[in-house]
Amino acid sequence: MPDARIVALAGGVGAARFLQGLADVIPRERLFVIGNVGDDAEIHGLHVSPDLDTVMYTLAGLNDPKRGWGIRGDTFRCLEFLSMIGVETWFGLGDRDLAIHLYRTGRLREGAKLSEVTAELCAALLVDSALVPATDQRLRTLVETPAGMLEFQDWFVRRGARGHVRSLRLEGAARARPAPGVLEAIAGAAAVLVCPSNPFISIGPILAVRGLREALRRTGAPVAAISPIVGGRALKGPAARMMKDLGHAATAAGVAGLYRDFVNVFVLDQKDRRLAPEIEKMEMRAVVTNTIMRGAARRRELAQAVLEALGIA
Amino acid sequence: MPDARIVALAGGVGAARFLQGLADVIPRERLFVIGNVGDDAEIHGLHVSPDLDTVMYTLAGLNDPKRGWGIRGDTFRCLEFLSMIGVETWFGLGDRDLAIHLYRTGRLREGAKLSEVTAELCAALLVDSALVPATDQRLRTLVETPAGMLEFQDWFVRRGARGHVRSLRLEGAARARPAPGVLEAIAGAAAVLVCPSNPFISIGPILAVRGLREALRRTGAPVAAISPIVGGRALKGPAARMMKDLGHAATAAGVAGLYRDFVNVFVLDQKDRRLAPEIEKMEMRAVVTNTIMRGAARRRELAQAVLEALGIA
Repeated sequence: MPDARIVALAGGVGAARFLQGLADVIPRERLFVIGNVGDDAEIHGLHVSPDLDTVMYTLAGLNDPKRGWGIRGDTFRCLEFLSMIGVETWFGLGDRDLAIHLYRTGRLREGAKLSEVTAELCAALLVDSALVPATDQRLRTLVETPAGMLEFQDWFVRRGARGHVRSLRLEGAARARPAPGVLEAIAGAAAVLVCPSNPFISIGPILAVRGLREALRRTGAPVAAISPIVGGRALKGPAARMMKDLGHAATAAGVAGLYRDFVNVFVLDQKDRRLAPEIEKMEMRAVVTNTIMRGAARRRELAQAVLEALGIA
Repeated sequence: MPDARIVALAGGVGAARFLQGLADVIPRERLFVIGNVGDDAEIHGLHVSPDLDTVMYTLAGLNDPKRGWGIRGDTFRCLEFLSMIGVETWFGLGDRDLAIHLYRTGRLREGAKLSEVTAELCAALLVDSALVPATDQRLRTLVETPAGMLEFQDWFVRRGARGHVRSLRLEGAARARPAPGVLEAIAGAAAVLVCPSNPFISIGPILAVRGLREALRRTGAPVAAISPIVGGRALKGPAARMMKDLGHAATAAGVAGLYRDFVNVFVLDQKDRRLAPEIEKMEMRAVVTNTIMRGAARRRELAQAVLEALGIA
């Protein structure tokens, strides 16, 4: 099936970097991204979908590579003025970025589904790949910390993801159904890739959608995951600390263990090659390569290596 | 009562110019502005109060004197990006201006009254005068044209106020109660001023609020109105054409006739001095002065002349 789709499960910045490389080595129309909505939030009354937007801006070539989020060259006049009138503005929202949130919020209020709005935005921004939220239902990550149960962005952005994580709760997961096309894409894929994203707060909410993990177990396509942990540290964000906090080894093998029921190929960094036997014991093929994506060439090489490991390069 | 308040009924740009002059010649704390909400609208899901904001920005010294609306030096990145993704953007919203609308919309959704939110915004922008919407209830001006019954901003901004006006409807007026403090301010005022605003679409919705016109008739304070029509033309906007369309003379005397039941002093321009006898026949004192406000000095002179005519200069 040379033309069947490559399906990717994606969080935010780490995933977007990997997808940028992938989109450079396969026809963009072949890429079908299932995005995380667990970090969605209402900010100043607007529905913000940070992970979807990071992937969307990246695939549209609008992303800010330094900051990691938002639109390149954006200004912050609105946010600065909100701050001037005394509003807390801990969540970064650029002026152009705001247009996306105004549009999304308006369409959702009209009764459109998040997947429809995301498709409309991707079309407007000339994104050739499919980007579909894992679910159209409300599914929100809550973080239990010593300060209590916090909304995800409150913990992650406002409090700088500080402090011990006691547990996570995926509010709404029990009722969340996969968005249209998601299960079909997994079932009919040429390959499924789990991007190097935080397994708990980026991939976890995707896997929690009803029937989604089961679809990954049952698909005939090979499923590969790329470790977001290298040498015991996260490529980006609090993944390593969360692994420990939640009782797992903060290693590539620890991540592999979380995916062992549906992943066939686990891609880890050269630095972690000693973990390969441990991963292979979990009935996954361990593929050792350079997973640190500094620059466009490295991103493409990683994507190519993953595709080769799956026999679809 | 030298310290009693000067109450002003105000629309948008024309009123704001007059109030700017007034605020220069009386202590700002003495000024109590009753603002029009008939032109409020939902734009991109946000509650926009154009007339309140024009007055607020002017009293805060933030207004754009050339454009007439919005905040001086504002940028339009958000609106430009909305347009880029295919959204109609006929209503001008600057990036800083958006912060005001986001705040207002959020607070209203939390259950705050428009008068509370307006007071909060005025406090944040260091406005020393009181600015109170005529009502906290929804009161919207609809314009009947050959193209049908249109929402006010659709007619005024989107369609450039073109075409014959068959009638106006003030939706919600029957249920609109005066906002807290409005009737008390009128009853206890040192003077009441009707700003040089469009009598139908700016002052009309204020007068339509239950009990408000009656309070103006009953107040012991002198009530003065400044003509928005000079030499048969409006100082700003479509007032003259609307006068004719709705069956009135498009003159200062025509405006005086609309206010004859509650106005004692009618201020008209030197150009229209021949209309003074006609106005005095309506049992109002006609005061002839220069009402065209070119520059800060002229604005102050007009304010001073009005106050002198009322014996409170």
